[in-house]
Amino acid sequence: MEQDYQTGDQVSIRTLKEEIKGTLLESHEPSIILLKLKSGYNIGIRKDDIREVEILEKKKEAKEENTTIKENPSLPYIDLIITGGTISSRLDPKSGGVKWLTSPEQLLKFYPEIFSIVNVRKIEIPFMKASESMSPGDWQKIAEVVEKSLNDKDISGVIITHGTDTLHYTSAALSFFIKDLNKPVVLTYSQRSSDRASSDASLNLQCSALAAKSEIAEVMLVGHATTNDDFCYAMPGTKVRKLHSSRRDAFKTVNSKPYAKFYPDKIVPMSSYKKRDNLKKAKLDNVFNEKVALVKFYPGQDPDILDYYAQRYEGIIIEATGLGHLPPSEAKQNWIPKIKKAIDNGLVICIAPQTIYGRLDPYVYSNGRELLDAGVIFLEDMLSETAFVKLGWVLGHKTWVKEGRVKEKMLENFAGEINARIEE
Amino acid sequence: MEQDYQTGDQVSIRTLKEEIKGTLLESHEPSIILLKLKSGYNIGIRKDDIREVEILEKKKEAKEENTTIKENPSLPYIDLIITGGTISSRLDPKSGGVKWLTSPEQLLKFYPEIFSIVNVRKIEIPFMKASESMSPGDWQKIAEVVEKSLNDKDISGVIITHGTDTLHYTSAALSFFIKDLNKPVVLTYSQRSSDRASSDASLNLQCSALAAKSEIAEVMLVGHATTNDDFCYAMPGTKVRKLHSSRRDAFKTVNSKPYAKFYPDKIVPMSSYKKRDNLKKAKLDNVFNEKVALVKFYPGQDPDILDYYAQRYEGIIIEATGLGHLPPSEAKQNWIPKIKKAIDNGLVICIAPQTIYGRLDPYVYSNGRELLDAGVIFLEDMLSETAFVKLGWVLGHKTWVKEGRVKEKMLENFAGEINARIEE
Repeated sequence: MEQDYQTGDQVSIRTLKEEIKGTLLESHEPSIILLKLKSGYNIGIRKDDIREVEILEKKKEAKEENTTIKENPSLPYIDLIITGGTISSRLDPKSGGVKWLTSPEQLLKFYPEIFSIVNVRKIEIPFMKASESMSPGDWQKIAEVVEKSLNDKDISGVIITHGTDTLHYTSAALSFFIKDLNKPVVLTYSQRSSDRASSDASLNLQCSALAAKSEIAEVMLVGHATTNDDFCYAMPGTKVRKLHSSRRDAFKTVNSKPYAKFYPDKIVPMSSYKKRDNLKKAKLDNVFNEKVALVKFYPGQDPDILDYYAQRYEGIIIEATGLGHLPPSEAKQNWIPKIKKAIDNGLVICIAPQTIYGRLDPYVYSNGRELLDAGVIFLEDMLSETAFVKLGWVLGHKTWVKEGRVKEKMLENFAGEINARIEE
Repeated sequence: MEQDYQTGDQVSIRTLKEEIKGTLLESHEPSIILLKLKSGYNIGIRKDDIREVEILEKKKEAKEENTTIKENPSLPYIDLIITGGTISSRLDPKSGGVKWLTSPEQLLKFYPEIFSIVNVRKIEIPFMKASESMSPGDWQKIAEVVEKSLNDKDISGVIITHGTDTLHYTSAALSFFIKDLNKPVVLTYSQRSSDRASSDASLNLQCSALAAKSEIAEVMLVGHATTNDDFCYAMPGTKVRKLHSSRRDAFKTVNSKPYAKFYPDKIVPMSSYKKRDNLKKAKLDNVFNEKVALVKFYPGQDPDILDYYAQRYEGIIIEATGLGHLPPSEAKQNWIPKIKKAIDNGLVICIAPQTIYGRLDPYVYSNGRELLDAGVIFLEDMLSETAFVKLGWVLGHKTWVKEGRVKEKMLENFAGEINARIEE
């Protein structure tokens, strides 16, 4: 088979089983031809399976180079905030790993579908990071950019592209950091870079564009609902968690329901949400006290670890077992005295469920009641990651701390982080 | 409505909607009548909904008091190991919490169904604990009791009843602690005590009895597969995790498949397993080095925590994000130097997935390769809880440590803890 086709050509590929039309992408796996389908979906075809490649249209060099942001005045405007992650990266053929897409133009070239749904007024790049490198200061920066866009009357909503690893922490942070939300704040991602077979970026961006011009005035994470490339969920920012390392539907709504299903061409609402109010003004409240930590309990764990945190931190979230348990007075490793001591010394200790799903209940076993008596705060059905972000945010409000309102605020439902009733 | 019925009576209860027959249980909720159905399932009926209670048969005082273990020579024999937990407890009407069932007879009175499936030869109670109070020494004790039963030629299998909070740690421990497994080792539980409406104990015990006399010579956790009281899964001991705080189907198989479905009257195999071999001798290998810890990474975390562990521990499992990431050299909180220093000082650092589901891959991003170069061990698709148990077990083998074989052993698949291929 002659290599007379090149990246950018429109081709028809015939295998033993089928005939597939699309645009050739650069492939870094020599045995694979990578094809972008009309749907925006990328697929890989094994060269061994190919019987014939017919070139339908050669790559248009000039047009390809001058990809710019085209406006369609009939469509609403959104702002796009790019922060790094796989969705902003491409395979690096040298290392076999990935590299950042270095310009917005490069990024947009990969995802032209978004422009048939919305106009992108502005692209902001506060930083480019893998999300495991982010820290609370980055959440604060993103919130500042988002707040400005939300209070711009020409803007319908905001899309933030982000790495997947800690995306659910950022979605929780934005949920607390922006009060009186007036418009959609959409976080999205891809698990596989755009130049790979079966990239999820295209569908996620299309659904995100729909979400950004929708009526849903919430912080939401929009991404693949299934392993198929068929529809996305819009998931509540405080009730979502990465639950798979590689699957395209890595994010799952926990202890709640998605706001809606998004198909490329329609929206199916699934639960209640706040409605868009373009007249309302969003307010930035992005304080954060970095002296907070997240600690996962494991059996036999030495409670001395509490001394470490009591000396260095102002608050911790402990991921306890079951309904919210730690070894009680009767256990060999009795946690109660160290907990009491740490709380007496001013450490705020909250408990979140290690089980991820479900609600805490300190009243079922004497163990729970003992912890409650020691002054521990049980965080209902709040995800531990959301709880960590919230504790930093609550302790960032110095007046709340001064007035002794930390427990009250941790148990106040600010952004859907506590679900009074979980549907099972 | 007159209260002429009493606990133990067989009654027929008529509500507006239906007629239900069963045995009256003691109810600690005054507005509820608790009924044990013929299926073994307990249900609660609101007194307000009851139109009529007809007594079918008064409680037989003598028979009730003399509940003993009845033998049926046609059935195989099992040993029952009771370690505490909700399945060994009942509601305490005073505290509203639960109390231990203090004798095997008390326990057996609640679960007569098991005796139509197997004979219980011996009941062992090495200790009675809530499972959050357990530590590795308890896993070692259970393993000793189990090994003795397995090598008794009259015994078909072993059932261990256990609290739910850390049951998946114990199941992992037994998977490593017993080599050359010859017979079924079944761990089971209940999420709701037997005197509560909708207790899951009866079905779980029936399925466990079936599993203990089955051909499946594996350490398995047997419990509700769904929220209905219809069938159980037998889940691999190293590939199972508590993923709900209160639901009866709290345990889920992760990165693998259950061995089988168990209905009270039939077995449906689901994946491959080792077969029973009554001639084989099980061997105890329950060493454990308690100088191991489990640490969950969160964004912005100060890598100084590694100094704490390097000073006190010999090995740690870090629950990293995504494919196995921690903040790399380019991040504000650069973890690499502290990781290198800790490893240079002899700390074994392994990485397991924070996402729970999916596999690690250090080769996709430069971040992963940087950690690999620093000497971190990436544990494939191993659950972090299983990894913690395994690390303590591997470091308990002094010769492996001396011969520098810790990494080799952590990546050797001893008990199904590494699944080469995950079906998605």
